[in-house]
Amino acid sequence: MLISLTTDFGLSDSYVAQMKAVIYSIAPQAQLVDVSHEIPPQDIVIGGVVLASAIGAFPPGTVHLAVVDPGVGSQRAPIAVEAEDCFFIGPDNGLFTLALRQRRMLRAVNLNNPKYHREKVSGTFHGRDIFAPAAAHLASDVRFEELGEPVERIVLAELPQPRIEGKIITAQVMQADRFGNLITNLDRDTYDAWRNGASDRDMRVMVHNTQIPGIRRAFCDAAIGQLLAFFGSSDHLEIAVRDGSAARTLAAGRASEVLVRRV
Amino acid sequence: MLISLTTDFGLSDSYVAQMKAVIYSIAPQAQLVDVSHEIPPQDIVIGGVVLASAIGAFPPGTVHLAVVDPGVGSQRAPIAVEAEDCFFIGPDNGLFTLALRQRRMLRAVNLNNPKYHREKVSGTFHGRDIFAPAAAHLASDVRFEELGEPVERIVLAELPQPRIEGKIITAQVMQADRFGNLITNLDRDTYDAWRNGASDRDMRVMVHNTQIPGIRRAFCDAAIGQLLAFFGSSDHLEIAVRDGSAARTLAAGRASEVLVRRV
Amino acid sequence: MLISLTTDFGLSDSYVAQMKAVIYSIAPQAQLVDVSHEIPPQDIVIGGVVLASAIGAFPPGTVHLAVVDPGVGSQRAPIAVEAEDCFFIGPDNGLFTLALRQRRMLRAVNLNNPKYHREKVSGTFHGRDIFAPAAAHLASDVRFEELGEPVERIVLAELPQPRIEGKIITAQVMQADRFGNLITNLDRDTYDAWRNGASDRDMRVMVHNTQIPGIRRAFCDAAIGQLLAFFGSSDHLEIAVRDGSAARTLAAGRASEVLVRRV
Repeated sequence: MLISLTTDFGLSDSYVAQMKAVIYSIAPQAQLVDVSHEIPPQDIVIGGVVLASAIGAFPPGTVHLAVVDPGVGSQRAPIAVEAEDCFFIGPDNGLFTLALRQRRMLRAVNLNNPKYHREKVSGTFHGRDIFAPAAAHLASDVRFEELGEPVERIVLAELPQPRIEGKIITAQVMQADRFGNLITNLDRDTYDAWRNGASDRDMRVMVHNTQIPGIRRAFCDAAIGQLLAFFGSSDHLEIAVRDGSAARTLAAGRASEVLVRRV
Repeated sequence: MLISLTTDFGLSDSYVAQMKAVIYSIAPQAQLVDVSHEIPPQDIVIGGVVLASAIGAFPPGTVHLAVVDPGVGSQRAPIAVEAEDCFFIGPDNGLFTLALRQRRMLRAVNLNNPKYHREKVSGTFHGRDIFAPAAAHLASDVRFEELGEPVERIVLAELPQPRIEGKIITAQVMQADRFGNLITNLDRDTYDAWRNGASDRDMRVMVHNTQIPGIRRAFCDAAIGQLLAFFGSSDHLEIAVRDGSAARTLAAGRASEVLVRRV
Repeated sequence: MLISLTTDFGLSDSYVAQMKAVIYSIAPQAQLVDVSHEIPPQDIVIGGVVLASAIGAFPPGTVHLAVVDPGVGSQRAPIAVEAEDCFFIGPDNGLFTLALRQRRMLRAVNLNNPKYHREKVSGTFHGRDIFAPAAAHLASDVRFEELGEPVERIVLAELPQPRIEGKIITAQVMQADRFGNLITNLDRDTYDAWRNGASDRDMRVMVHNTQIPGIRRAFCDAAIGQLLAFFGSSDHLEIAVRDGSAARTLAAGRASEVLVRRV
């Protein structure tokens, strides 16, 4: 059984290793895939964006363990969510909002069954003491409902949505990736519903007063060094520079506005 | 069988991969957990701190392979240590000092049996040619004493210890973690023995002329942006800023003094 | 079956995780080893250097998956190469040039059999949609020739070679590693053929007007802080400073010239 891990713990300290050690202690047969541990400290939005970008590639039944948890030790609940074809485990702080737009939530529990906690629960490291054991037990033979009491609703974050005003969609950059590609919150379904049959070539994309003509299919549809807009591997609109960095070229980043205009 | 890996090799070069490839060649069934490969180059103290912070989470029988090895190719011995419920493999340079305060050493060997070396041993990469094979063989069916000749004692580093002077303990920061939490060398047992029943609330903690009232249980016991002192997930005294960085706020780091005073 | 991964995707985004998720979906029994994901973006030379440095440690049959792919989505072919005792999968852009100097190529195919692609192939992420599935199928029960049509020749990069002029070899630094060690393109076989029995001690190595006496065996053959030259763990000439950084000391790096003179 696959367990994915997304945290803001970084790779210098031993926090991630402690979580994995606990998982393997309980579920020696588990297979672990690191999504990212370089989420900026306590940045729930980026944590949610990165997790959501990954889940489509995982097989059904995957347990997605995510810990970006500024409120550890406080009243925020530790939760597990059963979704259409996978599970999410982590703090109830909105981290799963984007993922749950892709995978419908079926039910959720508060991880309050101490039987499935680590023997001694610290006040500062629920990743190791509550979330990792829950993921490992779920990947073994423990049924979802045994992990704790049902909760009616979970916290969903209010994330910026693309604004549609006639012939213009105003999207927002959610994240700049390692290559300087700017990944927006405009997904292909929203775009397709809006464009109403208009061609990709008839679009003009504006970022910080720079206009990019048309929406392309791949990097090679632009010359080296040229800006281009395309729907990327996670089916969201991206702005890139072929063999370069759009983030640098446009001095743009998270929360920058991206306008798409139908001509 | 679990093998943990702690090195200063970083993740840009292929050194870690070469060690893992050698391990899997010998022990295809091994499960590997990276503790950290971001130990500052040749920093035996931080290597030992990070390793020691991790071992409590691993199941009995784990082989902890650690390579921070400024003296590779010199006379320092390559060793394996059998401890109460785990093994340590690496250079005999004090790297295991802190770990062995948690897990009593039973015996040690010099890894001088060439049968369990890689066929050709380089002068500069014992991690791949001596330590990785030893860990893999130990995780398979080779008995500890076959790895080499017994050694009477191993190198232990002289690490700073908390100083107790009546109502004051002077501790030292051993490491600032990714979040800027300052992790000291004061463990809970030493603290409990010293405080003699006094309450956590009656403590005053001083770092660089800044006073922090009391010892708390979790981040949420402080307001956002506020300093707090608490015993962290590795049961050592830590100084943190809730949702911030104590290292930055206090301009403190490794070797900074932390005073705990009983009022 | 082992699959190694070398990319320029970094560890902040979810790209590597998506590739691994696809591999495990197809080949749940696969064992994955990260060589490096910190190849500088789109740097085919460093990608090739790092991959080539790793392959000698892997067992026969390993599938080496490497993606440094500035031309993704263009006409460059996606290929698989069967070599003497391992496989290479990635873009046909010269990435495997150095590796194939160590492991003779037997045959190659264009990965154009859509049966072994991901259901929907994006224009920008062949790592996930073409290369990862090919590696996973090859590590399972699919025969090499089923992956696509044979190709006669693959792209080989023109990489700088050491120049031999009588008593002088002019080598080039290919890469500075994490420790600041300068790794050159001069391999031991070329050196041995050239020196014709002359002793390592009779060599003078010059980098940026600094002369280093002799070629040593290990770091401990130099005093702390001293420069030394030696054949490193990948059997190429390296320049290092014991317990220091040669890259910093010599202000040298990739493409710096290193002269070896026989006295």
